[in-house]
Amino acid sequence: MFRYIVAASLLTAASAIPAQINHSPLVDPKVAALRDAALNGDQYAWDITEGLTTEVGPRLAGTEAEARARDWAVKKLTEMGFANVRVEPFDMPVWVRGRESAEILAPFPQPVVIAALGNSGSSGPEGVTGEIVAFDSVDALRAAADDLVRGKIVFVDHAMPANQDGSGYGQFGAPRRQGPTIASKKGALAIVVRSIGTDKNRTPHTGAMSFDDGARPIPAGALSNPDADQLLRILKRGQPVRMKLVLESQNLGTRQSGNVIAEVPGRDATLPPILVSGHLDSWDQGTGAIDDASGVAIAAAAAKRIMDAGRPLRTIRIVWFGAEEMGLFGGLAYRAAHGKEPHHALIESDFGADKIWKFDSKLGEARKTEAEAIGKALAPLGIVTGSFTEAEGSDIGPMLSDGHFGVTLNQDGTRYFDLHHTSNDTLDKVDPAQLRQNVAAWTTVVAILSGGIEEPKARKRR
Amino acid sequence: MFRYIVAASLLTAASAIPAQINHSPLVDPKVAALRDAALNGDQYAWDITEGLTTEVGPRLAGTEAEARARDWAVKKLTEMGFANVRVEPFDMPVWVRGRESAEILAPFPQPVVIAALGNSGSSGPEGVTGEIVAFDSVDALRAAADDLVRGKIVFVDHAMPANQDGSGYGQFGAPRRQGPTIASKKGALAIVVRSIGTDKNRTPHTGAMSFDDGARPIPAGALSNPDADQLLRILKRGQPVRMKLVLESQNLGTRQSGNVIAEVPGRDATLPPILVSGHLDSWDQGTGAIDDASGVAIAAAAAKRIMDAGRPLRTIRIVWFGAEEMGLFGGLAYRAAHGKEPHHALIESDFGADKIWKFDSKLGEARKTEAEAIGKALAPLGIVTGSFTEAEGSDIGPMLSDGHFGVTLNQDGTRYFDLHHTSNDTLDKVDPAQLRQNVAAWTTVVAILSGGIEEPKARKRR
Repeated sequence: MFRYIVAASLLTAASAIPAQINHSPLVDPKVAALRDAALNGDQYAWDITEGLTTEVGPRLAGTEAEARARDWAVKKLTEMGFANVRVEPFDMPVWVRGRESAEILAPFPQPVVIAALGNSGSSGPEGVTGEIVAFDSVDALRAAADDLVRGKIVFVDHAMPANQDGSGYGQFGAPRRQGPTIASKKGALAIVVRSIGTDKNRTPHTGAMSFDDGARPIPAGALSNPDADQLLRILKRGQPVRMKLVLESQNLGTRQSGNVIAEVPGRDATLPPILVSGHLDSWDQGTGAIDDASGVAIAAAAAKRIMDAGRPLRTIRIVWFGAEEMGLFGGLAYRAAHGKEPHHALIESDFGADKIWKFDSKLGEARKTEAEAIGKALAPLGIVTGSFTEAEGSDIGPMLSDGHFGVTLNQDGTRYFDLHHTSNDTLDKVDPAQLRQNVAAWTTVVAILSGGIEEPKARKRR
Repeated sequence: MFRYIVAASLLTAASAIPAQINHSPLVDPKVAALRDAALNGDQYAWDITEGLTTEVGPRLAGTEAEARARDWAVKKLTEMGFANVRVEPFDMPVWVRGRESAEILAPFPQPVVIAALGNSGSSGPEGVTGEIVAFDSVDALRAAADDLVRGKIVFVDHAMPANQDGSGYGQFGAPRRQGPTIASKKGALAIVVRSIGTDKNRTPHTGAMSFDDGARPIPAGALSNPDADQLLRILKRGQPVRMKLVLESQNLGTRQSGNVIAEVPGRDATLPPILVSGHLDSWDQGTGAIDDASGVAIAAAAAKRIMDAGRPLRTIRIVWFGAEEMGLFGGLAYRAAHGKEPHHALIESDFGADKIWKFDSKLGEARKTEAEAIGKALAPLGIVTGSFTEAEGSDIGPMLSDGHFGVTLNQDGTRYFDLHHTSNDTLDKVDPAQLRQNVAAWTTVVAILSGGIEEPKARKRR
C-alpha cells in the first residue's frame, strides 16, 4: 500500500516541483508537494484564526465565552468535514477579572496602568492603600524580613529580555508565579509586579498564579512596563511612595470547561493516533489571536490538508484544549482520560504564529530515521533540526513527561512576549505569510508521521 | 560688539571643531561649536522631560494636575537661572474624562477598547445602547439621510497612513473633529470613530473636538485601531451590530490655566524677543512625554545653552503654553496679551522629539540671508532647508497667521501618530540621542537669531 502511494505521488508531485530545480532525494516528493502547497496557499488557518477571534473574541476558561468558543469549534470542525467531533467536558474553578485601577497617591499623584493576575485576591470596591516596598527580584523579596513587608504593597521588578527561543519566561516569570505567595506569607497588603513581557506599551500582561502553602489570597496585579519604569523613577527620588489599588476580581466556584476533539480517521484504526493540538481558551483582555487561536488553527489546518489529500494510515486526532491559561486543566483532563493509551506523537502549537525556526523531537531511538526524515523535509522552510531527545508543549507537557512521544515546531518568539497575555493579542498581530509557513511545517510533519496517505479512489481514476 | 564676539568665538571654537576636517566658512564657528556641544552632550532637555513626566505625570488642561505642572515649571525654570519667571493666567472651560467602556452586545458579544474624545457628552453611568451605522468617511456620514442615523450609534472609519511629515492628520482627523457635530445634528445617540492614529495597539487616541452650530453634545469616543478593525470584520458578517457605550465625562465649568514664561534677557532690551515654546499641558491618558514635555524641554534647553555661553543681543523668551490640547487657549491668551508687540521670531516644538529633518522659515524677504545662514548651520545635523515663506506651530499658529515671523524645525513624524494622544505617550518613547539632535538644531537657530552672544567677563579674561 505504502509503495503504491509513493509511486502515485511521484506523478502528482511533478507539477508542484519545478523541473528547473533538483530536489533532495531524501524528501518524499508527495510530502514536499503538500508542504509547498500549504506554504503558498493555505487559507484554512487564517479562516479559523479570523473566525474564532472575531465571532467569539476573548474566551476566558470556564466562562460563558469559552462555552461559546466550544460551540463555535464544534460547528467549524464539523463543517470542515472532520469525523468524531465531540466535547470532552471537565470541571474547574473559575476566576474572573473585575474593575481594576491603580494610582500613585504620593509623592507625585498620578494613575498607573495595572491588570489583575489570574487568581488574584480581590481588594473590594474600596481598594487597598499602602506604602510601596520594592524588590529587584523574587529572591530579594524572599530574603526580606517580614517586618519590612507587613502591611505594605510589594513591588517586584525584573529585566526580562526578548529572545528568539522565548527563554527567560520561566526565569523572569518568577515575580508573577512565586511573588504573590511569598508576599502574602510575609503579611503584605497586596503585590504588584512588573509585567512579564518585553514591550513598552501600556498594556499590562496578566497570567495565572496561585496562592500556595495556605497563603491568604491578596490583590495581585501586573503594571505595564512603562508604568513599572515610572514607579522605579519615582522610588529613586527617595520619598515614601503610596499607592491605591482596586482589583475587584471574583472566584465563581466550580464551572464546566471542555476539550473539543475531532479526527481524521486512519486506514488502520488499531494504530495509535497522532495528536495535533492547541488551546481554545484565551485570556480575557485580548481576543487570543496568537494565544492561541493561531495554534488551534495551525493544528486543524494541517489535519485538513492531509484529509484533502487522501486517507492517512494513522488517525490524526485534533484536540483543542480548554482552560490552558488557568492551569492546564484541559491537558490534565485529556491525560486522565487518555494518558494510558499509546499515541504515535503529540504536537501542540502554543507560541504564536511567527515563523517556525527549529524542529525538536522525542520519538525514541528506534524512530530516529523518521525524525531525520522530518528534519530533511522541513529544511527548505528554513527550519533547523534541533534535539532528537526533547519535545515540549503546554497542555501536552504532562503526557510528554509521562514518556509519550512528541514533536515541537518552535516558533520565533522574538516579539511573542510583547503581546502575550495583553489586550494587544489581536488578529492584526498574526502575519498571514508566517502563518502559512507554520501550516506548511505542520503539514509536513503530520504527513510523514501519518504513515502514508492513500489518495481517494476518484482521484486515482483521474 | 558683535565683531569682538566672533573673533573670540574663533578661539574657543578651535577646540570644538577637529582640525582634521575643514568646515564651511559660511557657518560661524561659535555657532557650530554650540551646536556640536548640544548634539554630543545636552542633558538639560532630558532632565526636564524626565522630571515633568515623572514628578507631575499627566496634566490635563485646567485641572489641578496642570496647576501642579505650572508650579513645577516655575521652580524648574527658576533653578535653571532664567530671569522674569512668571505665570500669565487665563480662564478656560474644563472637561474631564470619567469611567469609559464599550461592548459589542450582538451578534458576537465582546468588549472593545474606547477612549472618550475631549468635550464628549456624557452617557451617564447607565450608558447608551444602540445599533451601529457605519461610514467609511465623514463625507459618507454627511451625505446620509437623517433617518439612517437617528437613534443609532454612528461609526466613522478612515485609513490614516504614517508619514514623515505628519501629513494626513488634518485630512484623516475629520472623523474626530467634524463627525460628532454631524452625527448629533442627524439625531445619533452617540458616535465612535476609528482612532486618529497609525499604530496597532489597543491604546485609543483621544483628542479634542467641539459640538458646533448648536449641536447637542452626545457621547463621542475613539476605538483603538485593532478594535475598529474588529468592528469592521463583525459588520461585514452582515448582521445588525449592537453596542453599549459608557462614557461618563464631565464639564467642570470655568477654571484657571496659565502660560509659564521665563527669559534670557538680551543686551538690548529694546529689541523684539525671540519666542521659544512648547506646551505644558498634556492629555490625561499618558504622561505627555512626546506631547509635549519634550517640546518645552527642547525650547528651554536651547535657551539655557545660549545663557551658559554668554549674553545674547536679543532677549530669548521661553513660553510653556497652558491648555493647548483643549483648543490653543494658552496660545490665544498670549496673543491677546502680546500679539501686538513685535517678535523677532516665534518657534514652537510640538511634534515629539524624533530627529529634526527639515527647517522652514518665514522671516521675510529682508531676512533671507539670516534664514540661509540658519540652513547652512543646520545642514551638518542632516536637516534640509525647506520653505522660506512658511512656518507653523500649534500655539503660535494664530500669531503666525497674523503676520509674525517664525521658524519651524520639523521632527520626523513617522511614529508620532502611533503614540499621539494615547496612554502610550510615556518617557520610554523619547530617544535621548534624537532629543539631543533636537536641542542642537534649536540651539543653532536661537544662537543665530540672537544677534550674537557676548561671553561672560570671567570667561573673556581666561
